[in-house]
Amino acid sequence: MTHQELTQQIFEKQSYLCVGLDTDIQKIPAHLRQAEDPIFAFNKQIIEATAPYCVAYKPNIAFYEAQGAQGWESLQKTLDYIPSNCFTIADAKRGDIGNTAALYARAFFEQLSFDALTVSPYMGEDSVTPFLDFAQKWVILLALTSNKGSSDFQTATQQVGETPLFEKVIEKSKQWATYEQMMYVVGATQTSYLKKIRTLLPHHFLLIPGVGAQGGSLEEVSKATLTAQGGILVNSTRAIIYASQEKDFAQVAAQRAAALQQEMAQYLAEKRP
Amino acid sequence: MTHQELTQQIFEKQSYLCVGLDTDIQKIPAHLRQAEDPIFAFNKQIIEATAPYCVAYKPNIAFYEAQGAQGWESLQKTLDYIPSNCFTIADAKRGDIGNTAALYARAFFEQLSFDALTVSPYMGEDSVTPFLDFAQKWVILLALTSNKGSSDFQTATQQVGETPLFEKVIEKSKQWATYEQMMYVVGATQTSYLKKIRTLLPHHFLLIPGVGAQGGSLEEVSKATLTAQGGILVNSTRAIIYASQEKDFAQVAAQRAAALQQEMAQYLAEKRP
Repeated sequence: MTHQELTQQIFEKQSYLCVGLDTDIQKIPAHLRQAEDPIFAFNKQIIEATAPYCVAYKPNIAFYEAQGAQGWESLQKTLDYIPSNCFTIADAKRGDIGNTAALYARAFFEQLSFDALTVSPYMGEDSVTPFLDFAQKWVILLALTSNKGSSDFQTATQQVGETPLFEKVIEKSKQWATYEQMMYVVGATQTSYLKKIRTLLPHHFLLIPGVGAQGGSLEEVSKATLTAQGGILVNSTRAIIYASQEKDFAQVAAQRAAALQQEMAQYLAEKRP
Repeated sequence: MTHQELTQQIFEKQSYLCVGLDTDIQKIPAHLRQAEDPIFAFNKQIIEATAPYCVAYKPNIAFYEAQGAQGWESLQKTLDYIPSNCFTIADAKRGDIGNTAALYARAFFEQLSFDALTVSPYMGEDSVTPFLDFAQKWVILLALTSNKGSSDFQTATQQVGETPLFEKVIEKSKQWATYEQMMYVVGATQTSYLKKIRTLLPHHFLLIPGVGAQGGSLEEVSKATLTAQGGILVNSTRAIIYASQEKDFAQVAAQRAAALQQEMAQYLAEKRP
């Protein structure tokens, strides 16, 4: 999916919501556990219920890998079921060199047809560029994550005036690809850094996890990073897919996604001239 | 496998060789491509041929993932086939938080029974500690990798006196686990840093890729990092498993592994009192 197409979806649906598919077999409603493929049975209903309100889905690959070969089949079926007007993100946080990165790219972009893959920047340019050889596919680079450990290396500085690592990552990696091929992961909990990051990256999409269960505020995040072109995807997972663990789980997920979409429509309206 | 058991294997086999199993279906000998499971058929013969000369195997997970569900089956069969006195490393370079890391741990340590997993440090402590809850399992943290891009963030400094990132990673992460649960990836091509790293980590195992095809020298690496207890695993992949692409591939792989083992036996002897 291109930058233009994604932007168009955001304005058509009046939403920049991404629904995380961290589907844990131990957390899905009991009645689905008897299904032939419980993970896919759950995802199918979540996708049907939430597709009108979101523009992207982000399966967390760990949850599928934990099920071995069967998990990869559930993931493939899930991907095939997501409507083609939704952007799809493999949250895999991969990072390896040349040949290996090319294989990950083949697995996620060709075999599974994801639009985007999250990538860790630790190994530098030659661990990122192999993903850029695929037309209309995206790298979403970890910049500033939403977890506690982000202060260990990403924001830590030892000397006055030292540029924190996440800024070095942004400055350097901007040279590797345009905003039509690269996005950045920026945690919703990092409110003190969000405006600075938008200044460093005026045109790039930001993928923002951490709203909801992790404590980030949709309003604060939107005010700091939303642009007139949209330019953000805000991810919510647990607050949507596990809002109910009963038979009404899909209906409740739809309600939660719709509420977020309505709030987003308001912020989008405020940004329009 | 414990630190003591791994050390014992090194002295019994007079080897600290790790064989990389980056098994690419496009690079294996043509006659194996007709096998029911070509990747496993190749690995099986490589393992039989090289097991007397090495103490560890390191499948690169990308190569299996690129084959989807079938790839996970090939990986499982490969793991089951590796002799129990060999240390097994999932080269996956994973890095994600709490719940997700726990799932990766379950996939690699429980479902696949690997001894160790390579992990990226970018997300900090809470992306590493979930892997430490498993008895006799290891985290191998990326410190200084062997690729060109390692100069982008790992070794780059902007100010005089600034500690490079790879040193910050080592200093900080040493507090998270003992040398009986954590190792570090240090590229063989980083000769100017190897002695310094051994000073920072006098007791930890180092996993050293980059000897052979990538240009690192076994002699230099061994002189800089080998201890009286061993303390290193040196990985070789292409120079062993793809030394021949004919029907004699396993025989040639055994010769290459044996030559490295003999060189290693000499360096081990030099370190013993």
